[in-house]
Amino acid sequence: MEQFVLTDHPHRRYNPLLDEWILVSPQRAKRPWQGQNEAISDEKKPEYDETCYLCPGNDRINGGTNPKYENCYVFDNDFPALLKDEVASDLAQEDLFKINPERGINRVICFSPKHNVTLAEMEVSEIENVIKVWKEQYLELGAIPYINHVQIFENKGSVMGCSNPHPHGQIWAQSSLPTQVKRTQDNLLKYFQKTGKSLLKDYLESELQKKERIIAENEHFVLLVPFWATWPYETMIISKRHFSSIAEITQEEIKSYAEMIQIITVKYDNLFKTSFPYSAGIHQAPTDGLAHVEWHFHMHFYPPLLRSATVKKFMVGYELLAEAQRDLTAEQSAEILRNLSTQHYKH
Amino acid sequence: MEQFVLTDHPHRRYNPLLDEWILVSPQRAKRPWQGQNEAISDEKKPEYDETCYLCPGNDRINGGTNPKYENCYVFDNDFPALLKDEVASDLAQEDLFKINPERGINRVICFSPKHNVTLAEMEVSEIENVIKVWKEQYLELGAIPYINHVQIFENKGSVMGCSNPHPHGQIWAQSSLPTQVKRTQDNLLKYFQKTGKSLLKDYLESELQKKERIIAENEHFVLLVPFWATWPYETMIISKRHFSSIAEITQEEIKSYAEMIQIITVKYDNLFKTSFPYSAGIHQAPTDGLAHVEWHFHMHFYPPLLRSATVKKFMVGYELLAEAQRDLTAEQSAEILRNLSTQHYKH
Ligand SMILES: O=P(O)(O)O[C@H]1O[C@H](CO)[C@@H](O)[C@H](O)[C@H]1O
Ligand SMILES: O=P(O)(O)O[C@H]1O[C@H](CO)[C@@H](O)[C@H](O)[C@H]1O
Repeated sequence: MEQFVLTDHPHRRYNPLLDEWILVSPQRAKRPWQGQNEAISDEKKPEYDETCYLCPGNDRINGGTNPKYENCYVFDNDFPALLKDEVASDLAQEDLFKINPERGINRVICFSPKHNVTLAEMEVSEIENVIKVWKEQYLELGAIPYINHVQIFENKGSVMGCSNPHPHGQIWAQSSLPTQVKRTQDNLLKYFQKTGKSLLKDYLESELQKKERIIAENEHFVLLVPFWATWPYETMIISKRHFSSIAEITQEEIKSYAEMIQIITVKYDNLFKTSFPYSAGIHQAPTDGLAHVEWHFHMHFYPPLLRSATVKKFMVGYELLAEAQRDLTAEQSAEILRNLSTQHYKH
Repeated sequence: MEQFVLTDHPHRRYNPLLDEWILVSPQRAKRPWQGQNEAISDEKKPEYDETCYLCPGNDRINGGTNPKYENCYVFDNDFPALLKDEVASDLAQEDLFKINPERGINRVICFSPKHNVTLAEMEVSEIENVIKVWKEQYLELGAIPYINHVQIFENKGSVMGCSNPHPHGQIWAQSSLPTQVKRTQDNLLKYFQKTGKSLLKDYLESELQKKERIIAENEHFVLLVPFWATWPYETMIISKRHFSSIAEITQEEIKSYAEMIQIITVKYDNLFKTSFPYSAGIHQAPTDGLAHVEWHFHMHFYPPLLRSATVKKFMVGYELLAEAQRDLTAEQSAEILRNLSTQHYKH
C-alpha cells in the first residue's frame, strides 16, 4: 500500500474555528481549465472621477454630498441591509418557522480620497488611518445599547460584488451575533474553557515553530495561510498578543497591523499582476458588554482567484451541498505568497 | 413604534437543517444595480459538437472514447478530486492540526446524448432515466465498503463553474460524511429523537397548510421555496412519503419526481428567459450501513441569479464572514416562481 504524501493524496483537514472539515485534492492542481474566465478590468483610472459617488465633493446616489475629505470618510450606507428603527413584533415562534426582527446600522468607509488606489497601493501611514477609523467605529457603534456585533469588512473587485472601484470598506453593526461569528465564538470558548488558553494563541505558537505556512511576521502580527484554508490563497493576520477586539489595539500595534495589511495586499496584487479581488474582514469580540476573553483579534482574507487574473475557484455544487474543497495545499500557497515581492509590481 | 411588516423590515430566519440564521432585507430589493454583469451566452448550439468531450463517440480529454450512448452515460471523472486507492498513513493528530486521508470515487453522468439540451428541455421520460441512473449509482457506489456517502449534484452554467454545456451532473462518493451533510444529519436526528418524527415531514405538512411558499405539488412531491432560503430563487423538492434515500424510491415516485424537476427547471429558464444557472443536489441518508430513519429524501436548488440573466447575488464579505443575506423574501420568490408558466419559453 502506498504511503500518504501530503502533496499527492486527497485528504481532509479540520477547521477548529468553525468546527468543520474541508477537502483537499492536491493531485488535481494540474487539471486543464476549460471553464468561465472572469473579465478583469485593469484600465487606468483617474485620481478623481466626477461620476463616482464616493469621491470627495461628489453627490451620492440617494441624496447627500460628500465633503472634500482628505483621509478616510465614513457615512451611513444609502441602501442599508439593516435599519435603525425599533419595530414592535408579536411574531409567532413555531419551531420550524423561527423569525425575528433585526436592527442595525450599515456604514461605508472610504479608505482614501483617491479614486484610483487600493490598500495595496497606499502608504503604511494611510492604512494606519483606516485602522484608526475601524477602531473608532467599533467603539462608537459598539457603545450603542442595541448593537451587539460590529462586522468590519471589505469587498474588493467586481468579481466580489463590489460595484465601485473607489477604495472602500463596509461595516454592518447589528443586534444579533451573526451565524459564522457565533459558531467561531462557541469554538473559541470551548477551547478556552478546556485549556484556559486562547485557541489562536496556541495555534500561532505552533505555526511559528512549524514555519510551513507563515508568509510574514513582525513585532505584533503574523500573516499566514491557515492549515484549514479553503480559498486557494486564503490568509489570516493574527495578533501575537492575546486581546479580544480592536478596542484594545495600541498605537504601536496599529502600525504593525498596517504593515501586515500592506504586505498581504501587495503580494496579492503581485501574484497575478492584477488588482487582486478578495473579501476581507475582522473577527473579534462582540459588543454585548461581556468580557469575551476567548476572543483573539484576527483578520481573514478570502480571495477567489485560482490560477490567473481571470480564473477563479468556484465554490459551487459539491462545496455548497457537501464540503469546501481546494486543490493546492495550504503549504503550497504559503510558499508561493512568501516568495512574492513586497514591492508592488506597478512601482 | 412601527409594527413589524414581513415585506418591509429586516429580519432573521432560522434554518433548522443547518442550525443557522440568515438575514433578510426586503427593503433593499429596490436598490439600483451598479455591479458586475455576468456574460451569459445564449448562442444556438448544435445537437452534436465534435469538440465536446461528453458527446457520444468523442474522445475525452484524458484518454478514452465515449460510446455512442443513447440515454445517459456514466464514467469516472478524468480529473477526480478523490482517489480510489487506500493509502497508509501515520499522521500525527494534533488538536489544531487534524488531518486524515480521504478515499473516494468521482463520476460524471451525461444526462442526454444531445449536446444542446438541459434538464429543462428534456421530456419527463428522459428525466426519469436520469433519476434511475442516480438510483443505480447510489446503490452501486453505496455498496462499496469504504464508501459511506454519495453526493449526487449538478452544476449548470458557466457562472456555476461548469466548464461544458453538454447536460451532465456529477457524483462524489467518499468515505467520510461531508461537513454540510453531517450538520444536516445531526439536526434531523435531534428532531427525530425529540419528536419521533421526520423534521421534513412535519415541515412539509405545515407548508401545505400555510400555502405561502409552495410552487407546485403532485402526488408524491412538493416543490417550494424554503422558509429559510438564502439564494434569491432557492428551492427544494421534498418527497411526501418519509423515506431516507433514493434506494427506496418507487417506479411511480420516479415519474412524479421527474415531473417536479421538469417544472422547476422550466420555470427557472422562463424567469429571465435564459438557460438558468444553478447548483442542485440530493441530500439523503449516508451509505454507512446504518438505518438513518431521521433522513428524509430531498433535493436543493441553489441558483445565483438575482434580478436578470446577467445580475447575480454575490455571497461575499458579510455573507462569508458573518451570515447569508437576501433581499427578496422567500414568499415573494415563491409567488414569482408559482406564477411562471410550466411551458418552456423556447417552445
Ligand atoms: O468538476 P468540475 O466540473 O471541473 O468543477 C466544478 O465543480 C466542482 C464540484 O462542485 C468544483 O469543485 C469546481 O470548483 C467547479 O469548477
Ligand atoms: O453593499 P454592496 O457593496 O452594494 O453589496 C455587496 O456587499 C454586500 C455585503 O457583503 C453583499 O450583500 C452584496 O451581495 C454585494 O454585492
